[in-house]
Amino acid sequence: MSMKTLADAFHDELRDILSAEKQLLKALPKMAKKASCEKLTAALEEHLAETEKQVQRVEKAFEDTGKTARAKTCGAMKGLITEAEEMLKEEAEPAVRDALIIACSQKVEHYEIATYGTLCTWAESLGYDTALNQLKQNIDEEETADKKLSELAKTINKDALAMG
Amino acid sequence: MSMKTLADAFHDELRDILSAEKQLLKALPKMAKKASCEKLTAALEEHLAETEKQVQRVEKAFEDTGKTARAKTCGAMKGLITEAEEMLKEEAEPAVRDALIIACSQKVEHYEIATYGTLCTWAESLGYDTALNQLKQNIDEEETADKKLSELAKTINKDALAMG
Repeated sequence: MSMKTLADAFHDELRDILSAEKQLLKALPKMAKKASCEKLTAALEEHLAETEKQVQRVEKAFEDTGKTARAKTCGAMKGLITEAEEMLKEEAEPAVRDALIIACSQKVEHYEIATYGTLCTWAESLGYDTALNQLKQNIDEEETADKKLSELAKTINKDALAMG
Repeated sequence: MSMKTLADAFHDELRDILSAEKQLLKALPKMAKKASCEKLTAALEEHLAETEKQVQRVEKAFEDTGKTARAKTCGAMKGLITEAEEMLKEEAEPAVRDALIIACSQKVEHYEIATYGTLCTWAESLGYDTALNQLKQNIDEEETADKKLSELAKTINKDALAMG
């Protein structure tokens, strides 16, 4: 039986988020490159730097719970990124594209918030205190990144609206 | 140019969530069937009934903004559901499976919260007041469903932990 204990579920989920974060490392620079608003480019680049640290924290969470860090392809993140890439290919007014980039990024943030939320709850149940500390830092960063994007969207939506 | 205005982006996103909700209509009964905890089955069945109403509200939002309701395959939801279906196939202790069903469901809820969040912001910018009213009802239901699952997880995680 592959899912005999909550610890099995925890490590399976940890492998999922490791894959998700690594996929994001490749996708974020493409999105930043296509953004027009400088503040959006800066926010995406800042989140790229955070994502690099988040990967390290996930790897640390494996180590803290006596496991070797190993990713398992996250199909959901694959779907999210494919959608984002298809959107970037479409011809769009710059401010409208920026609004769409924010929309895609917030979907990604929410995927991670949901996953880290589960991981934190499970780590707490399992008494994985050191791993929990790593995962909490990641969920806090994702929530802050999501709020920053909502704030940025206010200006960008106005600009997009002015397009017609 | 396919994304000339914010209204284009809004309708594209509306097509995405219509597909997502319709995919969910098919997936939720399978998840409910595999759940062991009666409260979890009930929560998933209740959310199925809500999802049916949500589809109608999204269709109403199209109508309110002068468009014909038309779905556009949501690849992200497809990925989320594929992951959930693969998880359901794995051999698992009943309480551990329940914990995993909650994890998958909360990822789905968060996808919808992110998407309705964007749609509400855009509807507001565009002055689509009637559509906004429909979409707000949907996001409120998704947020409540997510909180209910977090609450349920407390008991289920304890049961899963008792498995070993």
